Amino acid sequence: MKIKNVTIAGGGVLGAQIAYVTAFHGFNVTIWGRSEGSIERIKPRIENLHNIFSKELMACPSYIGAENPNYPRSFFKDKNEITNEKIEELKNVNEKIFKEIKYTTDLNEAFSDADFVIEAIAEIVDQKKDFYEKISSYLKEDAIIATNSSTFLPSTFREYTGREDKFLSLHFANSIWRQNLAEVMKHDKTSDEAFESVIEFAKNIGMYPAVIKKEQAGYILNSLLVPFINAGLNLYGNDVAEPKDIDMDWKIGTGSPRGPFEIIDIVGITTVINISKTNPQANDPNSPIAKAIKKLEERAAKGLKGIETGEGFYKYK
Amino acid sequence: MKIKNVTIAGGGVLGAQIAYVTAFHGFNVTIWGRSEGSIERIKPRIENLHNIFSKELMACPSYIGAENPNYPRSFFKDKNEITNEKIEELKNVNEKIFKEIKYTTDLNEAFSDADFVIEAIAEIVDQKKDFYEKISSYLKEDAIIATNSSTFLPSTFREYTGREDKFLSLHFANSIWRQNLAEVMKHDKTSDEAFESVIEFAKNIGMYPAVIKKEQAGYILNSLLVPFINAGLNLYGNDVAEPKDIDMDWKIGTGSPRGPFEIIDIVGITTVINISKTNPQANDPNSPIAKAIKKLEERAAKGLKGIETGEGFYKYK
Repeated sequence: MKIKNVTIAGGGVLGAQIAYVTAFHGFNVTIWGRSEGSIERIKPRIENLHNIFSKELMACPSYIGAENPNYPRSFFKDKNEITNEKIEELKNVNEKIFKEIKYTTDLNEAFSDADFVIEAIAEIVDQKKDFYEKISSYLKEDAIIATNSSTFLPSTFREYTGREDKFLSLHFANSIWRQNLAEVMKHDKTSDEAFESVIEFAKNIGMYPAVIKKEQAGYILNSLLVPFINAGLNLYGNDVAEPKDIDMDWKIGTGSPRGPFEIIDIVGITTVINISKTNPQANDPNSPIAKAIKKLEERAAKGLKGIETGEGFYKYK
Repeated sequence: MKIKNVTIAGGGVLGAQIAYVTAFHGFNVTIWGRSEGSIERIKPRIENLHNIFSKELMACPSYIGAENPNYPRSFFKDKNEITNEKIEELKNVNEKIFKEIKYTTDLNEAFSDADFVIEAIAEIVDQKKDFYEKISSYLKEDAIIATNSSTFLPSTFREYTGREDKFLSLHFANSIWRQNLAEVMKHDKTSDEAFESVIEFAKNIGMYPAVIKKEQAGYILNSLLVPFINAGLNLYGNDVAEPKDIDMDWKIGTGSPRGPFEIIDIVGITTVINISKTNPQANDPNSPIAKAIKKLEERAAKGLKGIETGEGFYKYK
């Protein structure tokens, strides 16, 4: 399946990033919004990305020839591709695509020509099911659909798509032009062909495709992050050490940029509490994790919820 | 307790590093070895460190004024302290201490003047117990002892020291002049005074002291690493994804330098198998961790044990 026309459904923060990066890599991009109101909310996000990409490209000459440049990974295959010619070429691309991305609320316009649909609408099961049912009659027979859902497995929705074998998950991080990770996850009815096409698509838009061969809640990243954060919380709940020392220990010991409590501040304490409560050990009030949840709840009650509130385990301006 | 005279027992790789860094920071250092033969094995390690420090110091001028220099953290309080004057001063220190470190097999000479003893002998319980019993009669009443044991909790040995309240753990990483982490761990009979003295000592030799307020097997670092590696092994055992993709996902998603399988290659597959087998879930042959152990054992049988054998999940020259 040769993907050329890509439709992004939903233009939230991530939907807009996916759309922009996809267009930036030469695909024909249409953004579908539920209403005129939602289209009007999407356009400023795309304008903002246009500006961000302009600024990124302006900084790119300083990366030429640098030993270990921290460049936008989705812009260049590798650091050797960073040349003045390539930068100029990408500047033109950035101006061009900005004008060419199409917006529509019309299902026929959005979906009848699409080779590939990326669903990035709200994380509400019924809305997603309804969406898939609605678009299926417009789609070409061989069109592939991917959900960007963080929370739900693709098998939750596949029966509503009318094409279980051409349905899978494609999950992005944030700031995807820099954090160029795409988790590509099949379910047991996804065809190898559709799986390969989407892996290839992810590469073609400058992503590293992390190939997930069977359904896994949390994909790879959260499957590692949750136990890691849990291990930090166990030490904290058990009063073994203070968050700052746990973080510093991990950072010096492994060379990583952030320890568990700095990551908790990014994720937000409320989310971490909710995830931790699903841990069976949390039912025992004497368990380290239950004690940690209690301490987190006390902090949350004081408004120390992480970066979103300006202070968590650390202060943020 | 003002620490001035420090005796390091055992001059293995880490014992030598601890001794050298301690001397480098102005303490009087004696290395005690069990026999003349062990002293002769220690001396080349100290010579090697003298050369390493010389080379490190020669590179230091290039760090002056750099935005994010990767300098030996135990040499300077912070990057602002990196000046030509300071570098020259440290070069002199390096030459001076190299000649001043004392070596002895004599218990009286090694321990009767020591304010602080760091035990870094073999990880054999009976040898350590025997050592503590032997030195206790030589020590000053107020001398503090720390064990660098990675494997054993301080309570395993405290009754043999004759000074439970002045005994605790002080655990170092490797290449401690760069990876400047010291995990300081008390047990429930360690006095606050001794605990504070050793935390202060760790700071004074340029370490970040990670304060561990109660006994914790694996200190902080391994308490985080083991569940993290276990999470990676669960994905691997369950055939969710390949090690390379799991590592890349973590690295791109968190900005960390190494994923779980790169860390397994450093730790060594044999050690990881042994640790994983202590996981209760490993008893169920259908569990992801049991399946992962089986795969690891197959790789180990082929000699793919990690960096030590030149190849693990990755190849090393």
